[in-house]
Amino acid sequence: MDFGVPPAVQEAVIGVTRRADFGYPYWPGEDPVVAAFEERMATRHAWRPAPGRTRVFTDLLQILQVLIEYATEPGDGVAIHVPAYPPFLASIARAGRRIVPLPMTWEPDGWRPPSDDLAGRLREEGCRLLVVVNPHNPTGRVLTRAELSALAAAAEELDLVVLSDEIHADLVYAPHRHVPFASLGEAAAARTVTATSATKAFNIAGLRCAVAHVGHDRVRASLEKAPLDFFGTPSVLSRVATVAAWREADDWLAGLMRTLEHNRGLVAEWAAGLPWDARHQAPQGTYLSWLDFSGGPLADEPAARLERLARVRLSEGAEFTQHTAVGSASFARLNFATSATTLTEILGRLSTAVRA
Amino acid sequence: MDFGVPPAVQEAVIGVTRRADFGYPYWPGEDPVVAAFEERMATRHAWRPAPGRTRVFTDLLQILQVLIEYATEPGDGVAIHVPAYPPFLASIARAGRRIVPLPMTWEPDGWRPPSDDLAGRLREEGCRLLVVVNPHNPTGRVLTRAELSALAAAAEELDLVVLSDEIHADLVYAPHRHVPFASLGEAAAARTVTATSATKAFNIAGLRCAVAHVGHDRVRASLEKAPLDFFGTPSVLSRVATVAAWREADDWLAGLMRTLEHNRGLVAEWAAGLPWDARHQAPQGTYLSWLDFSGGPLADEPAARLERLARVRLSEGAEFTQHTAVGSASFARLNFATSATTLTEILGRLSTAVRA
Repeated sequence: MDFGVPPAVQEAVIGVTRRADFGYPYWPGEDPVVAAFEERMATRHAWRPAPGRTRVFTDLLQILQVLIEYATEPGDGVAIHVPAYPPFLASIARAGRRIVPLPMTWEPDGWRPPSDDLAGRLREEGCRLLVVVNPHNPTGRVLTRAELSALAAAAEELDLVVLSDEIHADLVYAPHRHVPFASLGEAAAARTVTATSATKAFNIAGLRCAVAHVGHDRVRASLEKAPLDFFGTPSVLSRVATVAAWREADDWLAGLMRTLEHNRGLVAEWAAGLPWDARHQAPQGTYLSWLDFSGGPLADEPAARLERLARVRLSEGAEFTQHTAVGSASFARLNFATSATTLTEILGRLSTAVRA
Repeated sequence: MDFGVPPAVQEAVIGVTRRADFGYPYWPGEDPVVAAFEERMATRHAWRPAPGRTRVFTDLLQILQVLIEYATEPGDGVAIHVPAYPPFLASIARAGRRIVPLPMTWEPDGWRPPSDDLAGRLREEGCRLLVVVNPHNPTGRVLTRAELSALAAAAEELDLVVLSDEIHADLVYAPHRHVPFASLGEAAAARTVTATSATKAFNIAGLRCAVAHVGHDRVRASLEKAPLDFFGTPSVLSRVATVAAWREADDWLAGLMRTLEHNRGLVAEWAAGLPWDARHQAPQGTYLSWLDFSGGPLADEPAARLERLARVRLSEGAEFTQHTAVGSASFARLNFATSATTLTEILGRLSTAVRA
């Protein structure tokens, strides 16, 4: 993301640094990151996390890996919508669990998660864990309450643990609304680990601070048996930055969303003008566009070829279905979190390359 | 520690923050924390860490807990000199391993680690892991090459994994010299995990960044099987702070050591003037003094009583032998990393309390 970070975040970090307040952090009550998370979920996403169930980690990928180890056994199936963020697929495969891909399908009105006989499919594949990335990376789909409820029903039927990765929840365009998985009802909340972080919306990935609300009792008990410092601890600066982002940077975020929404329009217009159907749905959330190049001259490894031809770096689609039999090799993911000027230059270069 | 942090550390953190350089860190080569660690060990401690064996963690306690899990089994013995930093003892006990205490003994010339039939004792107790905290917390002993070699010989005889916690290595007073355990020779290096951090000497504990040089092949292979992000990642700010501390703050450290050495003298003089033998050896490293109150009126829970009587907070000695049969309940640990003025006030209040 090319937009710097919220001034409130910079001021918080610089303030602590000037005061040289780097000793062991002492919080008189609850960890302020947890309090800020609980407050933000309640005020912004209409979900009230159960108290005492939120743990601080350093990032979402860590939370996924920890959950794989503590909620599944080698050989178990882990379901996830594909295309998916490549390190998630790599983590599942490396842990010796089986990826059970839930392929998003292209309909005339956009990308849709599979719903036909979901429970049957998951049962057949020996699923123990369902990973829901919502808003979805890379398609930008914000799953509806109905779509989430279908997943929750299947999870209920099969007694699955659900990991709900909601890291893009603050990057949703109106009229779409983010629905926290755990807000679907008590049953859903009781089997869900909700993971999020201020790092995406507020551009502070390098600060390494994330939270996991562990609604699932058995998973929680198993995590509580781990050594107390086993998973590491975010730094005090990461904590104050996260709290500042969640508590004092919503104006900055609103400005960011206006810029991203404009960019989103530029990409959608550009994609619609391509001489083939790029199966592009303007994202409902995130700053990512998922584009199919199969109808054009760069159908094979489009990102690699666009980097050579246009000097523009997209993410290669094939990686988003790695370790599965699902194909996405003709796709590429475009990140449009940059200035309109730079984005226009990028799109212009892409046009030249695909028309050459 | 009441001395702030090195200006170079503050400037490094503020620089990155002003540039809003908080994206995913991209290091063109090796992690700069690892490079700075390797360089510092070579130039300052005459030990050249083997390349490619250093991993970054968030703190020493995490490294201990990870090593307990990956190098031992429940029920195994873990040897450690006592008194010991209380969270270390708590971590071993909580993991279901048996603490094998190696009691430091008081000799006319100071504290000494046990050496008689070390290997026999460790064999009898089913030891798998030897934890060496050097410089030693709380006695401040800097173990000599001969003392370390005796430990290395026992470790060799019993094929132990050694965790060498050297976090206080930069806080050693002349003429004492820190000898890295892994520098004793190839055999010692090949069974040792050396753990350190800039957090103690440079007062940045809250930043959460530590390194472990894993000389032991089997432990290294077992750690490499863990999920890649399982143990979390320090933030980019913690990394630049650590690098600045290790590379650009030795003048600050030299000034700190002058202050601490003066304070060390004040404490030693004060302890020598007590109306009983406090078994106090001026620490050879660290800013900690280990004091026996058994000959005076506050022999029982001295720290708790001194907090009530003198409004001064020491660490309770009993905690430093918790979960063992060794006694240290008449001791307390004093942290003298404060100004000479404050320290004089503290010592004056302690004198009043113990003479009351």
